[in-house]
Amino acid sequence: MPVIAVDAMGGDFAPEEIVKGVAGASLATAIECVLVGDEPRIQAVLDTLSYDPSHIRIHHAADAVGMQEAPREALRAKRDASISVGAKLVAEGQADALVSAGNTGACLLACAREFRVVKGVRKPALASVYPRHVDHPGQDPLALLLDVGATVHCDAADLVQFAVMGNAWARRASKTARPKVGLLNMGAEPFRGGDVLAAAHERLAALPAIDFIGNVEGSDVAEGRADVIVCEGLLGSVVLKFIEGIAGVVNDVASYAVRQRLLWRLGMRLLSGGLREVAHLTEHAAYGGAPLLGFEQLLVKVHERSRAPAIANAVKLAAKTVRDGVVAEIAAAVQEVRA
Amino acid sequence: MPVIAVDAMGGDFAPEEIVKGVAGASLATAIECVLVGDEPRIQAVLDTLSYDPSHIRIHHAADAVGMQEAPREALRAKRDASISVGAKLVAEGQADALVSAGNTGACLLACAREFRVVKGVRKPALASVYPRHVDHPGQDPLALLLDVGATVHCDAADLVQFAVMGNAWARRASKTARPKVGLLNMGAEPFRGGDVLAAAHERLAALPAIDFIGNVEGSDVAEGRADVIVCEGLLGSVVLKFIEGIAGVVNDVASYAVRQRLLWRLGMRLLSGGLREVAHLTEHAAYGGAPLLGFEQLLVKVHERSRAPAIANAVKLAAKTVRDGVVAEIAAAVQEVRA
Repeated sequence: MPVIAVDAMGGDFAPEEIVKGVAGASLATAIECVLVGDEPRIQAVLDTLSYDPSHIRIHHAADAVGMQEAPREALRAKRDASISVGAKLVAEGQADALVSAGNTGACLLACAREFRVVKGVRKPALASVYPRHVDHPGQDPLALLLDVGATVHCDAADLVQFAVMGNAWARRASKTARPKVGLLNMGAEPFRGGDVLAAAHERLAALPAIDFIGNVEGSDVAEGRADVIVCEGLLGSVVLKFIEGIAGVVNDVASYAVRQRLLWRLGMRLLSGGLREVAHLTEHAAYGGAPLLGFEQLLVKVHERSRAPAIANAVKLAAKTVRDGVVAEIAAAVQEVRA
Repeated sequence: MPVIAVDAMGGDFAPEEIVKGVAGASLATAIECVLVGDEPRIQAVLDTLSYDPSHIRIHHAADAVGMQEAPREALRAKRDASISVGAKLVAEGQADALVSAGNTGACLLACAREFRVVKGVRKPALASVYPRHVDHPGQDPLALLLDVGATVHCDAADLVQFAVMGNAWARRASKTARPKVGLLNMGAEPFRGGDVLAAAHERLAALPAIDFIGNVEGSDVAEGRADVIVCEGLLGSVVLKFIEGIAGVVNDVASYAVRQRLLWRLGMRLLSGGLREVAHLTEHAAYGGAPLLGFEQLLVKVHERSRAPAIANAVKLAAKTVRDGVVAEIAAAVQEVRA
């Protein structure tokens, strides 16, 4: 069974909801978790919960990076920050993967310092697993969007490598033999979106290892035409935050539209629980988070606002990713394309 | 009363729905429309409708650009394309503004050829009017996102000018004394998003003419914190298409979530009309389209899938924009910031 290090101090509801999520997972699965952080505080939370002590250890870390802190300065000042200690545990082989709901910049920086980049990888990418429309039975209801914030701008070679890594993930994690890979762009034509995107399009179309379906547009992200969608971090991050904001705006727009119509008003009221569920889904709670691809070690980053069920799901996603050998699959795919 | 030239041949449902929209506007308003396109076909559609003939003229144009045609090649081959003829009518003062649901690239190119750029404007921008969350009474339920596709990449000076133009639009068209202007980015911190966005942030923060609220993220687009959101065309275009796809995905995600719950299922059924209405709203039908800012003449671009009500609304938006003197307001604002 994989051992998952969990940053107990990262996230808007840390350590309470993090510890609660791990306690839940300890009862429901055989996954072993190492809670990294302030031992007395973690133990105090554990004491209020039922959990399986044979599946949980605590690894003390005296410091924690706050959600609003500047990542570089925080990691410099706090040598014993839980995110750094967790990343070290994984780098040293004491755990198989790391889960954190903490400060994204600090997570990425700690991993960049402690993890080893897969040979041949230019830039690691944060890949968000998100729910999409399903066309046919057996299709994975989740798709992958990368990069969502490990980079800002990318060149064509970076984007091609994101496609290769995302493709390897989808093949192994989603059991999709030939994942459909799309390039996020402002139009369907191969020449759209400037030089970088046009060059990426050309290279992807020429790559036999990838089932490249061409450019996809904003509307295709939701509609699920592609199993893997590739873009630079600036674009992916804005789109991801937009996905997270969907439920809110639809609720508002619908309220605006239904003001005059009794039937709709009734429907809205009945649906309000459903809309909350949509918000929940789009907040990553139900599907586990964003794996950081391109390192020999694995981080699963979950949303800062994650509560216990999201943490438990992220732990399960991390364990499944380790068991499925996804990191090795990515390394092999990167090598194959380079050769 | 303003005279509005309407490209009768552009759009997925042209000329039928375009002519129907103009016929509707002719009965409901005193706006004078010039339908530009294939006269016999336009007249044949008009003959099936009730309309006020004193408010509608036809200006013949023999050619039309197809929705899938490459813009540059199409405009070269089709000298008498309806979009070019319509743009010329406006440039020559025979009409006050142009409305088209046609090929976006061809619209932008025809305007770039026929219209005059406002003195001092670096790049015109396509500005999408979209529905957002309303916090307080009197707040405009619509906000402005620009650029959504007239550019691909931009430098900091371009983005600052988009802010100035969008601010002038919101002040005049939405009667907002001090519109809140945000910069679309991947994080709230001023240094985020690379050199161009960091420089744009610094310049906007130093500009007294603008109430700059800093970086806004994807989730803020929907939540309506800003009256005007500025970004390069690649980013804006992807986000806009995403907005248009919202209703679909929410329907799907909600269906997925509600599968097991009778109450929700009932709510969904009652709401399905409402969701169609949301799709309708997000397809620009209800609020008029995307004005192209930065030219001395005005184009209002509407979605390719627009039907008659969307066309009628776009005609009203164009007429209101002309009456409000928005173009002059933008020109004055650009001059003021340059001085």
